[in-house]
Amino acid sequence: MQLVIIGGSDAGISAALRAREIDPSMEVTLVVADAFPNYSICGLPFFLSGEVTDWRTLAHRSAEDITQQGIRLLINHTATAIDPERHIVTVLNQQQQCVDLPYDRVVIATGATPIRPVIDGVDLPGVFLLHSMADSFAVDTYIREKAPQSALIIGGGYIGLEMADALTLRGINVTLVEHHPTVLKTVDTAFGSMVADELQRHGVTVISGTRIEHISPQQDHLYVQGTGGFSHTADLVLAAVGVKPASSLAKQIGVETGKHDAIRVSRFMETNLPHVYAAGDCTETFHHVLQASTYLPLGTTAHKQGRIAGENSAGHPKAFHGSLGTQVLKVFDLAIARTGLREDEALAAGFAPFTHDAIHWDHKVYYPGAHKLRIRITGDRNTGRLLGAQMIGHWHSEIAKRIDIFATALFHQMSVEDLSELDLSYTPPLSSPWDPVQMSAQAWVKEVQTLEVKV
Amino acid sequence: MQLVIIGGSDAGISAALRAREIDPSMEVTLVVADAFPNYSICGLPFFLSGEVTDWRTLAHRSAEDITQQGIRLLINHTATAIDPERHIVTVLNQQQQCVDLPYDRVVIATGATPIRPVIDGVDLPGVFLLHSMADSFAVDTYIREKAPQSALIIGGGYIGLEMADALTLRGINVTLVEHHPTVLKTVDTAFGSMVADELQRHGVTVISGTRIEHISPQQDHLYVQGTGGFSHTADLVLAAVGVKPASSLAKQIGVETGKHDAIRVSRFMETNLPHVYAAGDCTETFHHVLQASTYLPLGTTAHKQGRIAGENSAGHPKAFHGSLGTQVLKVFDLAIARTGLREDEALAAGFAPFTHDAIHWDHKVYYPGAHKLRIRITGDRNTGRLLGAQMIGHWHSEIAKRIDIFATALFHQMSVEDLSELDLSYTPPLSSPWDPVQMSAQAWVKEVQTLEVKV
Repeated sequence: MQLVIIGGSDAGISAALRAREIDPSMEVTLVVADAFPNYSICGLPFFLSGEVTDWRTLAHRSAEDITQQGIRLLINHTATAIDPERHIVTVLNQQQQCVDLPYDRVVIATGATPIRPVIDGVDLPGVFLLHSMADSFAVDTYIREKAPQSALIIGGGYIGLEMADALTLRGINVTLVEHHPTVLKTVDTAFGSMVADELQRHGVTVISGTRIEHISPQQDHLYVQGTGGFSHTADLVLAAVGVKPASSLAKQIGVETGKHDAIRVSRFMETNLPHVYAAGDCTETFHHVLQASTYLPLGTTAHKQGRIAGENSAGHPKAFHGSLGTQVLKVFDLAIARTGLREDEALAAGFAPFTHDAIHWDHKVYYPGAHKLRIRITGDRNTGRLLGAQMIGHWHSEIAKRIDIFATALFHQMSVEDLSELDLSYTPPLSSPWDPVQMSAQAWVKEVQTLEVKV
Repeated sequence: MQLVIIGGSDAGISAALRAREIDPSMEVTLVVADAFPNYSICGLPFFLSGEVTDWRTLAHRSAEDITQQGIRLLINHTATAIDPERHIVTVLNQQQQCVDLPYDRVVIATGATPIRPVIDGVDLPGVFLLHSMADSFAVDTYIREKAPQSALIIGGGYIGLEMADALTLRGINVTLVEHHPTVLKTVDTAFGSMVADELQRHGVTVISGTRIEHISPQQDHLYVQGTGGFSHTADLVLAAVGVKPASSLAKQIGVETGKHDAIRVSRFMETNLPHVYAAGDCTETFHHVLQASTYLPLGTTAHKQGRIAGENSAGHPKAFHGSLGTQVLKVFDLAIARTGLREDEALAAGFAPFTHDAIHWDHKVYYPGAHKLRIRITGDRNTGRLLGAQMIGHWHSEIAKRIDIFATALFHQMSVEDLSELDLSYTPPLSSPWDPVQMSAQAWVKEVQTLEVKV
C-alpha cells in the first residue's frame, strides 16, 4: 500500500508516523515543499527574539529521525497536481523536473498561508509576512544587516503579539496596529485590553481601531499610513493578519471546500473524493461543543487530525473527536488562554450563555510569589452546561494547564456545577483547597441562581 | 432549623458556609476547640520556614468573615458529648462551664490528630508533633529561644518532607529518618528516591529503613537511637508519622467507624445515626476509582465533604462523587503529584494494571528554561482504562495542574488511549503540541500493544 502525503509540517508528519505505526508495511512518501520538514512554526517568534539561538533546534524531529521511521522524505519537492483517476501525485523536484508518484491513498496536508493584506506598498523591501522558515530567515537577515531601530506590526493576533514581544526583546522599538477595538480578538475585550496594557508596560505602542492603508519608502525608512489620520515611520514592517487554507491544489481536482475555503473533511479526515484524505490547517475542523465544522487552524489540532488521517489511510477507522479551540499564548509576563466558546459564539450557536468574570490568587496568598489570575467562565444558564472558559494571568500561574482542566471538562460535557466535584491537587505554593477553576465555577453557579431569583 | 457543627477547620467551615448558602434561615453554630477557626493547617510548614511572616495570614477566612455569614462562632469551646436522643451537643466553654447546644442536625468535623509514635522519650522537651496552630507556635518559640543548630525529623511523609525543607530554609541542619525503604511512600519508590536525592542536594541527611526507638537528653541536646545501630544527636526532634481520625466523641454515642477507626459515612455524609452527619479527616472517604471507602485525609476532600454535609443537613440531597486521592507536594525545587491508583493498589483492587514510566520536557526544549518531568501512568491492560498517574519534576513545570488533567480524566473513567483526543493548550514556552500527559499516554498504549504481541 502506497501512501503519499503532501506537506511536511504538523499534520503531514503526524499522518506519516501514525500510518507507519499502524501498518509498518505501508510505503509512505512525504512531499515537503521546502527543506524544513516538521519544523515548529510556532517557534519562529522565539527564534527572531534571540531566545532560540540555533534555528535547527526548532525541528520537532530531524530529517534523519523521520527517514529512520521508514518514511521516504522528498524535501524541496512541490506537489503540482493530483490525478485522482490514475492515483498519481505529480511533484516538481529540486531540478524542476516533474515526477509522478503513484498512490493508493493520499493525504493533503498543505497547511495555511499568511493572508497578504491589501495595502499599497506591502511588497516593498522591509515589509514582511511571517509563516515559513524562509520568511523567518529573511526577517532575521534584515535585522542583522539593517539593524532597524523601529518596527511596525500590522495585526494584534497571536503572531503579531508574539512578534511585538520578540522584537522588543531584540531591542527594537515596536508599534503594533490592530484594526479591531482591542488586540487578541480571540478573547473577550476585557482580556484584550489587559494584553494591550502588558505590551505598553514593556514599551510597545499599541494603536487599535486603525487599519493600515499605505506604506511608502521615505529615505531609509518606511512611512506607514492608516485610517483616522494615522501615520508612523518605521524601519521594518511586519504584517500578521491571519492565515488562509492552502486548498488550491485540492480544489483543482474537485475536492470540496467549506468555511473560509478550507477543505471539507469527514470525522475520518476523508474528503469527498475516494482515497483522498486531508488534515491540518488546510481543512475545516470539527468543533466538539458546536458539533459542527468551523475553521480553526491550530498546531495541536493539526497533529491530531494528521494522526487520524494516518490511522484511517492505513485502514484503521478512527474518528476525530473534535477541537475545542483550546489555545494559550505568552506575551511578555502574561499567559492568555481559552477553550470552548465565548459568550458571543455560544449565543450565535443557539445556547443561552452567561459569563462570570472572577479574580483569584493562583495559590495561597500567604505563600510568597502569588499572582492574581482572572477567569471568565461561560455556561448555559438553562442547562448549566459548561461552554467555555478564558483565563489570563502571570505565565507562571499554571494558566495553560488550568485551561486544560476546563478543556477536559468540556470534552465530557460537564456542567459548571460539577467542576466542584473534581478532585484537583493542592499545596499552598501551587493552588488553593478549591482550585481557582472551581472557585470561579462556584461563583458562576451562585450568580446564575441569583439571576433566576430576580427573574 | 438548628445546625451544630463540631470542628472549625476545612470540613466544619465548609459545612457551615454551604448550609447558610443553601438555606439562609438555618441557625448555624460552629464549635471550635481552639482560637483558630479555618486556619490553613497545610500552611504550618511555610510559617515555620519563615516564608509566611505573619501567622494570621494562614487563615482562609477571618473570624469576622465567618460571623458575617450569619454563623455563630464559639471559639475555645470543646464538644464533650452528644445526646442523639435529646438532640443536644454539650460543650465546655472558655470558663470551663458546660453548655448545652440543642440541634436539629449535627455535623461532626473533628478532624484528625497526629499519631504519637511509641518511642521512649517522645515527651521530652524539644520533641514536637506538628498538627495544630498551638503545636506550630511551640516549635516556633523553641526555635527562637533555643536557636537549635540541628533537627531530626521522624517520618518522611508530607509533613516530614515539608518540615525538612522549612527547617533547612531556617538555617537548621536537618536529618530525616524514615522507617520505609524510601521517603514519600505515597508514590512509587523510583519517585521517592528522587525526592530523597533532592533533600540531600539541599543538605538534608536522609536515613531510610530505620525506625527510631529511643530519645534521651544528652547535655543540652537530644540523643536519638534507632534500629540498625542508628544514633544521632540533635537539638530538636520533630515526629511526623501520620494522623488518625479524631472519632472518639462520635464513637461514644454509637456512631460506627470503619477503616483506621474513621467514621463510616454514606455518600451523603450521613452516619448510621439519624440527623448526625460527619465530614473531613475524621471520616472514611469514598474513592472514585475503587468505588469503595478508604481512609484518605486530605484538605481538598475535607472541603468537599464539608460542603456536601452542609448541603444535605440543609435538606438538599447531594452525593459526594468521591476522591481520587489527588495530591501534590513541593519539596525544595521539586513538585511531586499523584492521582488515582498506583500499580500495587490497582492490583489489590482486582485490576490488571500496567505502568509506563516516561520522561518528557515540560515545554519545547528550544525555548529557554525547559525542565524534564517524569510521568508514571497506570492503566488496566485488559480494558485500557486509566487508573492513576504520578508525576515529578520542577515545581514550575505545571505538575500540579497536569496531574489535574489526569484527575479530570479519571473522574470520567477515560481510557489511556482517549487522553490523546483531549484538546489541550500549547505554546512553545509552556508545553508541546502533544502535552507530556498525552505523550506518556501514547507510550503506554504502544507498550501495552507490544506486550500483547509478545503474549
